[in-house]
Amino acid sequence: MLIKAVVFDAYGTLFDIQSVAAVTEEAFPGYGELITQIWRIKQLEYSWLRSLMRRYRDFSVITRDSLAYTLRCLGLQSEPDVFDRIMEKYLHLDLYPDATSTLAALRGNKLAILSNGSTEMLDTLVRNSGLDGVLDATISVDARQIFKPSPDAYALIEQRLGVAPAEVLFVSSNPWDACGAKAFGLKVAWIERVTAEAMALACVENDVLPPLTLFKALRTQMDELGCEPDHRIRALAELPALVEA
Amino acid sequence: MLIKAVVFDAYGTLFDIQSVAAVTEEAFPGYGELITQIWRIKQLEYSWLRSLMRRYRDFSVITRDSLAYTLRCLGLQSEPDVFDRIMEKYLHLDLYPDATSTLAALRGNKLAILSNGSTEMLDTLVRNSGLDGVLDATISVDARQIFKPSPDAYALIEQRLGVAPAEVLFVSSNPWDACGAKAFGLKVAWIERVTAEAMALACVENDVLPPLTLFKALRTQMDELGCEPDHRIRALAELPALVEA
Repeated sequence: MLIKAVVFDAYGTLFDIQSVAAVTEEAFPGYGELITQIWRIKQLEYSWLRSLMRRYRDFSVITRDSLAYTLRCLGLQSEPDVFDRIMEKYLHLDLYPDATSTLAALRGNKLAILSNGSTEMLDTLVRNSGLDGVLDATISVDARQIFKPSPDAYALIEQRLGVAPAEVLFVSSNPWDACGAKAFGLKVAWIERVTAEAMALACVENDVLPPLTLFKALRTQMDELGCEPDHRIRALAELPALVEA
Repeated sequence: MLIKAVVFDAYGTLFDIQSVAAVTEEAFPGYGELITQIWRIKQLEYSWLRSLMRRYRDFSVITRDSLAYTLRCLGLQSEPDVFDRIMEKYLHLDLYPDATSTLAALRGNKLAILSNGSTEMLDTLVRNSGLDGVLDATISVDARQIFKPSPDAYALIEQRLGVAPAEVLFVSSNPWDACGAKAFGLKVAWIERVTAEAMALACVENDVLPPLTLFKALRTQMDELGCEPDHRIRALAELPALVEA
């Protein structure tokens, strides 16, 4: 495969959004991980719904709104400073442990992020993580006022990097994002962080399924959208060998 | 308010999609209601994702695909005839108990359904329920190859009924649908079937929240999409007095 650019999704792919759970758990003991799961589902829903409604607001607004919904549904009250502290964590998410070494090993290719995040959120996050030194571009869908998986969002890659879709390897752990990128015409590597085997095992081992397993089931398994990624990998660290092959 | 037409969402508004649970429980004991909740979430997601990806397939395909995803995630195997029997129930959903009497009381206004369902699914469902005698039109988004909450979907009402958006009362229990209709310019009555108070109480009463309460929390509370319905009602039966007022 002829690859000239490797472009990464940000949230859930390079950055571990579950790392917010430490902050939500501190704010609402016993609810930490649950909040992050519901929050993420609503955050994605709102990005898709606002895109379809043609009522785009940037991802920082959507992230606030979906957190507000989550706390309201769980009957949790938050002081403004607690709310802001949780939101602040979105600008300091942990990198997956193999992210920095993988990007370093991929040098020689054009390297970029294409994310639903707003320009300001992404620039701050990338700077805080130290990835700004290795990335050629951080591309926000803000420029087109529509979220992934709209083709208009993926089209930003060629516009910004000057690399044709068939020569781009797009990397995402989000199944719907992998499908959207594939439907658009990019080469796609999907990171299968929770395997079907592990998911099936969790279901068998729990006679009544724990809620968190269920919420993860909604987000981690390949979707039935009529698309198949070119590659299934288990971790970012597999990418250098894949691109070289 | 000057109302010339009352237009209803179908799934979850006139028809109780939870009535599928009897069939899924028979097929997969212990999983019946859980399957319907996950299935519904993925069904909606796929309608929004395919709309954004511009890969429309009709709602019968999306409904099959989301059921396949649900069973796979839960580690459940199904024979083709079991799968088909579950799907078949979607053509024989129960009406909410006050649906028929409400529609009868609203005669004199133009009455219609606007639904994501395919033309064939809807025509069969409406005929099986006996509502074909009281409805002036059953409108499927199929005609525009895009799902609600796209404005293109709501625009079908004026095209088919000849009534301007401001003179249409659109009725839905789905919060995102109520928001989409309002953003488009219709008058909107949202049916709040699970009140915030009941949801908060369920959360307080369960130290560890049961999964089904959580899934319902995702679907039943008013969304944070910057829209507010004109009316909040608890049941279809409140509509005749509302329209007359």
